[in-house]
Amino acid sequence: MPTKNQQVLLAARPVGAPTETDFRLVETELRDPGDGEVLVRNTYLSLDPYMRGRMSEAKSYAKPTELGAVMIGGTVGEVVVSNHPKLPVGAAVVGTLGWQRYAVTDGKGLMKVDTSRISASAYLGAVGMPGVTAWYGLTEIGCPKAGETLVVAAASGAVGAVVGQLAKIHGCRVIGIAGGAEKCAYVTSELGFDACLDHRDPTLEQQLRAATPDGIDIYFENVGGAILDMVLKRLNPFARIPLCGLVSQYNATGAPLPVKYFGALLTSRATLRGFIVSEHMDKWPAALAELGDHFAGGRIKMRESITDGLAHAPAAFIGMLEGKNFGKTLVKLT
Amino acid sequence: MPTKNQQVLLAARPVGAPTETDFRLVETELRDPGDGEVLVRNTYLSLDPYMRGRMSEAKSYAKPTELGAVMIGGTVGEVVVSNHPKLPVGAAVVGTLGWQRYAVTDGKGLMKVDTSRISASAYLGAVGMPGVTAWYGLTEIGCPKAGETLVVAAASGAVGAVVGQLAKIHGCRVIGIAGGAEKCAYVTSELGFDACLDHRDPTLEQQLRAATPDGIDIYFENVGGAILDMVLKRLNPFARIPLCGLVSQYNATGAPLPVKYFGALLTSRATLRGFIVSEHMDKWPAALAELGDHFAGGRIKMRESITDGLAHAPAAFIGMLEGKNFGKTLVKLT
Repeated sequence: MPTKNQQVLLAARPVGAPTETDFRLVETELRDPGDGEVLVRNTYLSLDPYMRGRMSEAKSYAKPTELGAVMIGGTVGEVVVSNHPKLPVGAAVVGTLGWQRYAVTDGKGLMKVDTSRISASAYLGAVGMPGVTAWYGLTEIGCPKAGETLVVAAASGAVGAVVGQLAKIHGCRVIGIAGGAEKCAYVTSELGFDACLDHRDPTLEQQLRAATPDGIDIYFENVGGAILDMVLKRLNPFARIPLCGLVSQYNATGAPLPVKYFGALLTSRATLRGFIVSEHMDKWPAALAELGDHFAGGRIKMRESITDGLAHAPAAFIGMLEGKNFGKTLVKLT
Repeated sequence: MPTKNQQVLLAARPVGAPTETDFRLVETELRDPGDGEVLVRNTYLSLDPYMRGRMSEAKSYAKPTELGAVMIGGTVGEVVVSNHPKLPVGAAVVGTLGWQRYAVTDGKGLMKVDTSRISASAYLGAVGMPGVTAWYGLTEIGCPKAGETLVVAAASGAVGAVVGQLAKIHGCRVIGIAGGAEKCAYVTSELGFDACLDHRDPTLEQQLRAATPDGIDIYFENVGGAILDMVLKRLNPFARIPLCGLVSQYNATGAPLPVKYFGALLTSRATLRGFIVSEHMDKWPAALAELGDHFAGGRIKMRESITDGLAHAPAAFIGMLEGKNFGKTLVKLT
């Protein structure tokens, strides 16, 4: 049994973009699992934009991570010691065990998964929290109908990729927005979106107009900022806006970027709803079943950006917030 | 039978605040009602902020009024000549007959009303379109629960007054915002709101904080601008925002006033929905029945600002957009 653990702690609260000194890599002793507990060796750690929020003290939907505590994070791993009747040694488990190589836990919040049909890392992406986030926002708030036009930014990212592919399955016209020609090419050729626009292109607004000749019925919002205003001007009557994230604002210091065309929500009689997928656990089983089928059947694909070793997790996280990742951002821990 | 009509036409599209020269008072010939038609003498014309939108060509939820056409407007009146089996002479009728003293119509869109229990003018206010607007936004989008805190601006206006009084009936804590001490005193002492804040007071934001110690669960949005940002910072989880109007923006020229704290909609997992009450006609009968009972029973009150004579309607309308009215704005036509 391993006796040493490696963890990444929150060392300081970032001002603006996080830096590596906001994190601290430590080696700690592993205790033996007690009655009803298991020792899990994490094989992949998921890096996701929401973690930036937990590093801050600003009022949000969840309590901030305390200074000196292990960074929060989704993990997939394997049970290596078990005193738990339902989690035998060798079981593959998904959970939120944080930025660490091992964890001793009573198993609450762990879910056994089948890695024969679906790769372990996919349970952190298309068939995990990002996939369910896409599924919930699209189906429960977006209410897609065949023939409607959907726009999603961060289209090559873990959430955006699933949003667009699911919307295609629903029969929507799907326009992605992503950073750079390479990502855009991937989004159309690999993920099958109808078009993908480069947000760095100064003619983005004209391109968006051209790509949405019938207006926009659903805008899956995960970035905020200038793109939101461009979309607001093109909303169709009774448009729906699942509000999932505002990653362009997460590193902002000072005043947030204002939204200019808020009035379009009235003239379009739009519905906008903010949501946090962890507050809708009742929907997860159905969502995961559907996502798993689509993923296993090749109808939903997901590229992965894998960084090796926990020590490099902070740099990978910082890069992801700058859009340097490509697809689902993961850290391989073994 | 009268042979002359008086009408107010849209003479020019205003830039910014409308002026009297944007309207033209004309005298026209009245034609005889044909088969199935009635001649209605309008007794009251309703003046409402939405009319400002119809004067412009900007994209909105409804087509603009054409230049030279009669201004749109809700009316209550009396049938004076009838060739219609269901609308006898003497019937009191509510409709959208526009800024004119008489109208010949086939009766479509007219509703017979009982003016013995409820005054005719109330069918343009608490028991009419403004009342149903308040009812729809509050009950269908706001979903009020006893003990929750609701904020509504333009609190002494036709919509705001009903929103707050209905919310009190639902058991909410109700905070109004209005322009000036006199309106605020009326809102608390006559309408029974828990508090009313003067939007001209430079300490409005501190006052709002003090008046909403438990945060804000429902914000009935009918003004937009700076108040929205103040409210966004105080939203409770799962807050609801019926988006009914943005009257502070209707006369704006150039760029709209930006919204700074849009991100609060995400962190609060808020639901915001724009709506136009005329798109929900199926709800009107139930709403009017409820509003009529409350009004007749004295549980919902409404002050009226009545201007005499169609010739003065433009000035009254211009003043209303500047907040110079007090309660429901009406023009008496006879």
